[in-house]
Formats: sequence, C-alpha cells, structure tokens
Amino acid sequence: MKTELQHLRPLPVLPENPFQEEREAIEAHIAEILSRYRKPVSLYEPLRYIMGIGGKRIRPILTILTAEAGGLPMHKVLNAAVAVELLHNFTLVHDDIMDHDLVRRGQPTIHARWDEGTAILAGDALIGIAYRCLCDSCGEDLPGQVRTFTEAVVEVCEGQALDKEFEESGKVTLADYEDMIARKTGRLICMSTRIGAMAAGCDPATVDLLERYGALIGKAFQIQDDLLDYLSTTEELGKNVGSDMAMHKKTFVTLKALELLQGDALKRCRELLAARQAGADELRELRTLLVDGGVLEDGRKLVDSLFGEAFDVLDEADAGLKVEALRAYATWLLRRKS
Amino acid sequence: MKTELQHLRPLPVLPENPFQEEREAIEAHIAEILSRYRKPVSLYEPLRYIMGIGGKRIRPILTILTAEAGGLPMHKVLNAAVAVELLHNFTLVHDDIMDHDLVRRGQPTIHARWDEGTAILAGDALIGIAYRCLCDSCGEDLPGQVRTFTEAVVEVCEGQALDKEFEESGKVTLADYEDMIARKTGRLICMSTRIGAMAAGCDPATVDLLERYGALIGKAFQIQDDLLDYLSTTEELGKNVGSDMAMHKKTFVTLKALELLQGDALKRCRELLAARQAGADELRELRTLLVDGGVLEDGRKLVDSLFGEAFDVLDEADAGLKVEALRAYATWLLRRKS
Repeated sequence: MKTELQHLRPLPVLPENPFQEEREAIEAHIAEILSRYRKPVSLYEPLRYIMGIGGKRIRPILTILTAEAGGLPMHKVLNAAVAVELLHNFTLVHDDIMDHDLVRRGQPTIHARWDEGTAILAGDALIGIAYRCLCDSCGEDLPGQVRTFTEAVVEVCEGQALDKEFEESGKVTLADYEDMIARKTGRLICMSTRIGAMAAGCDPATVDLLERYGALIGKAFQIQDDLLDYLSTTEELGKNVGSDMAMHKKTFVTLKALELLQGDALKRCRELLAARQAGADELRELRTLLVDGGVLEDGRKLVDSLFGEAFDVLDEADAGLKVEALRAYATWLLRRKS
Repeated sequence: MKTELQHLRPLPVLPENPFQEEREAIEAHIAEILSRYRKPVSLYEPLRYIMGIGGKRIRPILTILTAEAGGLPMHKVLNAAVAVELLHNFTLVHDDIMDHDLVRRGQPTIHARWDEGTAILAGDALIGIAYRCLCDSCGEDLPGQVRTFTEAVVEVCEGQALDKEFEESGKVTLADYEDMIARKTGRLICMSTRIGAMAAGCDPATVDLLERYGALIGKAFQIQDDLLDYLSTTEELGKNVGSDMAMHKKTFVTLKALELLQGDALKRCRELLAARQAGADELRELRTLLVDGGVLEDGRKLVDSLFGEAFDVLDEADAGLKVEALRAYATWLLRRKS
C-alpha cells in the first residue's frame, strides 16, 4: 500500500526539526519559568509534567522567527513565545479531557495520570501563567499583543465547541470544517506570527501579512495532519494511523471524499466511515478508495498550494524584512512526516 | 437554637442589596455583551445561562464604587467591572465540576444540566471574554489592570488546588486555611478594588490602600460565609445550613473549634465533624458546642474587627477620595444574612 502512495509525497524528508538553537532557547526558558512554580504540588506537578513531555514547539518558533524577521532579537521575544506555547498546552490539556484521550506524545494525559479535576485546574493555570509571561514580554505594542492573545483564547474555545457539535451532526460540509479548524488550530498559529510581528514593532500592514502567513501554514498544517492519518505509518506518526477513521472523526479527508466520490465508491466509503469496528482491512480498503478517487492527491495539492500562497506572502513582506528563516521553516513543515 | 444565637448578630438586617443603580447597570452591560455571543450554541447557551441566574455581583459593584471613589464615572469602568464578574463566574463553573456541586444559586450547575466537557469549555470561554472586556476598558493603566487580573487568575487556581489538597490532609491549621482562602476567594475581591482604583488613575499608594480594603472585606466576607453555614436558617441562606459540616469541609469554624475547644468538648466536636451521617441532631449538638466554646463569638468578633480595619483604611484614603459609598457597601456586607 505504501508504494502506491509514494507519488503523493514527492519531497525528500528532512531528518529533524530545524532551528535547533531556537528550540533549545525555548526549552530553557520554559524550564526557567516553571522552576518558579512548585507549590501547590497538586497544581504544578501536573502542569510541569505536561510542559516537559515535549512537542514540536512550532508556535513559539514561529513567534521567534517572525520577530527576528522584523528585527527583534530572540531573547526579547522569548516571553511572548513561551506564552504562546503555554496557551497551546492549555488547549491540549482541556481538549484531552473532553475527547477522552488518554495518551499525548506517547505519555499519559494529565486526567489519565491524575484525575479530571487536576487536569481542569492545570489547564486553567496554564492560561494564567501564559498571560503572565506575555505581560513580561519586552517587545512593542503589548496591549495589541494581549488583545491578539485574548481573541485566540475565545476563538479556540469556539473551535473546540464546533468540533464537538460536528461529532453529533450529520450535516457538516467541508466549508464548516474549514471554519472550525481555522478557529480550533489555525488561530493559535496565526496568533503566534502576529504577536511576533507586533513585538518587533512592524507596521500594521506587515503585521497583517505575517498573520496571513501564519494562517496559511496553519491551515496547510492541519490538512497535512488529516492526510498523515492515512498516509503515514504508525511508526512515523507516533500514534495509530487510521485513528481518525476509527473514531469516526470528520476531517478534511472524509469530507472531501464525500464530495469527490460517486456511485459505488461513495456508497462503500460511507459504509467504511460508519463502520463500528474498523480494522486494518477496512483502513486499507478506504485508502484505496481515497487514492483512486483522487482525494489524497487533492489534499496534497491543496497543501502545496497553501504553502505556495504562504511563500508569496513572504515575498510580498520581503521588502523590509529578513524572511529567509520563515521560508525555511515553512519548507520544513511542508516536508514533515509526523 | 436560633434564640440563643441572636446575640451574635446584633446589627439590624438590611432588606436588600443596596446600590440598585449599579446592579442594574451591571446586569444591563452583561446582557449587552453576551448578546454578541450566540454561536456556537453549545458553547454560548450554557455560558449565558450561568451568567443569567443572578448572583450578588459584589465584585463588579466594588470595582465601580472604587473607581467612583477615585473620580471615574461608572460608565467608564463598566467593562472592567463586568470582566471581574465574568472571571468570578469562570471559577464557579470549574469549581462546581471539581467539587461535584449540582446546584448553584438554586439552579442546576452547567455540568449537571449539560455535561462536564460543556462546563469546562464554558469556563474557558468566560476567561477569554473576561480578558476581552478588560481590554475594552477605558480607564487608566490598562497594562497594570491586565497584570492584576492575571495575578488573580493564577492565584485563584492555586487557592482551589490548596482547597482540594486540604480535603485529603489531616494537618490543616487555621493559618493554612487563611492562606488558601486569601487566594481562592480573597484575591478576586481585592483585585476588584485594585482594578477600580487603577482605572481611576489613583496614585500607587492609594491603589494599594484600596486593594487592602478589598482584601480585608474579602476575608471578612469568607469568614461570615463559614459562620452563616451554622448561624443562618436554610431559608435565609438559599442552601442547606450545615452543608459544610455534612461535607466535612475544613472551614474557619471547624479549624477554630479545634483550636479553642478542650477536653470532652474537643473530643465530641472531632466525632461530630468526622460523622458519616450528620443530620439535624448532630448539627444542633455541634452548634451548641460552638456557641458554648465561644467559637462563633470569636468568628463574629474577627469579622467585626476586619470590617473595622477596612473602615480605618477608608479613613486613611479619605483625604482625596469620595469613599462614602465604599463605607456604605462594607456596612451592608457586614450585616448580610446570606
């Protein structure tokens, strides 16, 4: 099955997350900030645990690279970058409770290891500490940054609510899905670049451009995620492939399939997506339908086109900015396998 | 039993919450703000529900009266005041989940009426909308207000974590309890007055004084709450009296009793507090022990002394401020029966 799908992934795979220096600075700053939070133990042990089990740190890297593009050195935007990562982790902790997910990054989630109350409170405290970090940011336009951050808090809740509503609803269109995902995951990513640009004191038009860059790669990133659930191997992905299918989740792939497929293929696809017990055979059959029907090809093209748009936005912003690192980071994201 | 305790409540009871004009302005502003939040229905219906079942609105009234004391008219501080009330309601929604409370203000809590996931998300969105309101505040020193607000978000989580830790711990002292309650409930009240003072552009010393006023009445308010659970009737309180006892909650009253009582009274008190099934007879017996041992009298005196200190603080601040309304409000709080 893997061989058939190779043509959908034409780019060579980069070995690991670039921008090692930025990642290390982020980890060190997270560790330094959290070293101040020891008691109450029942609150801060779980919070430190979840922040310590890793993650790609995509959002804070984007904040740093955007700020640097605008001329602000990394050390001046680290607080804002960590604020963004803390806020992202709040969403993970609370979403994992609501979605009954017991594993995150290969480790037990907080509510699985402790209990729900502990996870609720750890998530709440992550919001507070995130705002604290942001208030300590030393870039420009702090009120603007706080407002941008706040818009994201509200929208990410709206996105999660829509996601839960869609689980119950039979009438979700691809446009509904795109709106939901823009709020649930896209918003935090374009917030990351917007805050970086604001901190660097970019003019409003440039701030908007760099936010748009974030929105485009955020959307591309999510569709990639949906595709990887069918294209990757379990080993590459670090979680079971086909889990979206097994969970009957409405994703770009399933909604696009319902749009593109016809006749018997559509009928069989509906059956497979509704199957109570979807195992390896069903996943293999669904993959074939998705490949033959051009669904995965279509997704891959959309991802490429979104990244293309993101590169165009950077060209537009290029006049006064040093956007090479943002270009390189988007290239790495485009090629990721997990 | 009631008659014996009358001497502990020497002040005439005021018929209802004063500052009707402020309350109406707060309700109208909450309604106006929430009218913008309709969809997703699964998020905003529960959020509007919990904000609509009332409450004394003590915190936003304090913000308004403090701002007015500093010369800022009410309409200029309404956003900040509503922000404070929204944040307070976030704590109620999440605490009710953790404490398994099914009723709030005589109505089902969100997680009881909907489900836990809905309540988690409604609480999260309340934080976001609260910050949004605060960002729209038009008083002075917005960055200072945001920082004060943020400190309260973190501390209120710490207070709740300590409260849960104390449920499991046998070694809680009165000092531990006072520290916990200062964070869990006191902090939001002194935040309310601090933000009002900051919005009015008061000088730092006056801001600190008015925060201290808030801290004192906040502490007094909480000890009153603990006393009312033994002194009130169920009708007055709007919830069952003796519920703290039945829940084995460590409160000012129980911890003070363990300090003050001796010999057989102490032994019997411990037994009653640990009783699996505590009914009306046990409550009556405990009340008698608390009255005879001077515990309730001691609590009443502490409440009076804290309010006395709060009035002194207002005298100190009186030089350049119009603090009459803050004095009147503290007097009303001192006399409340529920």
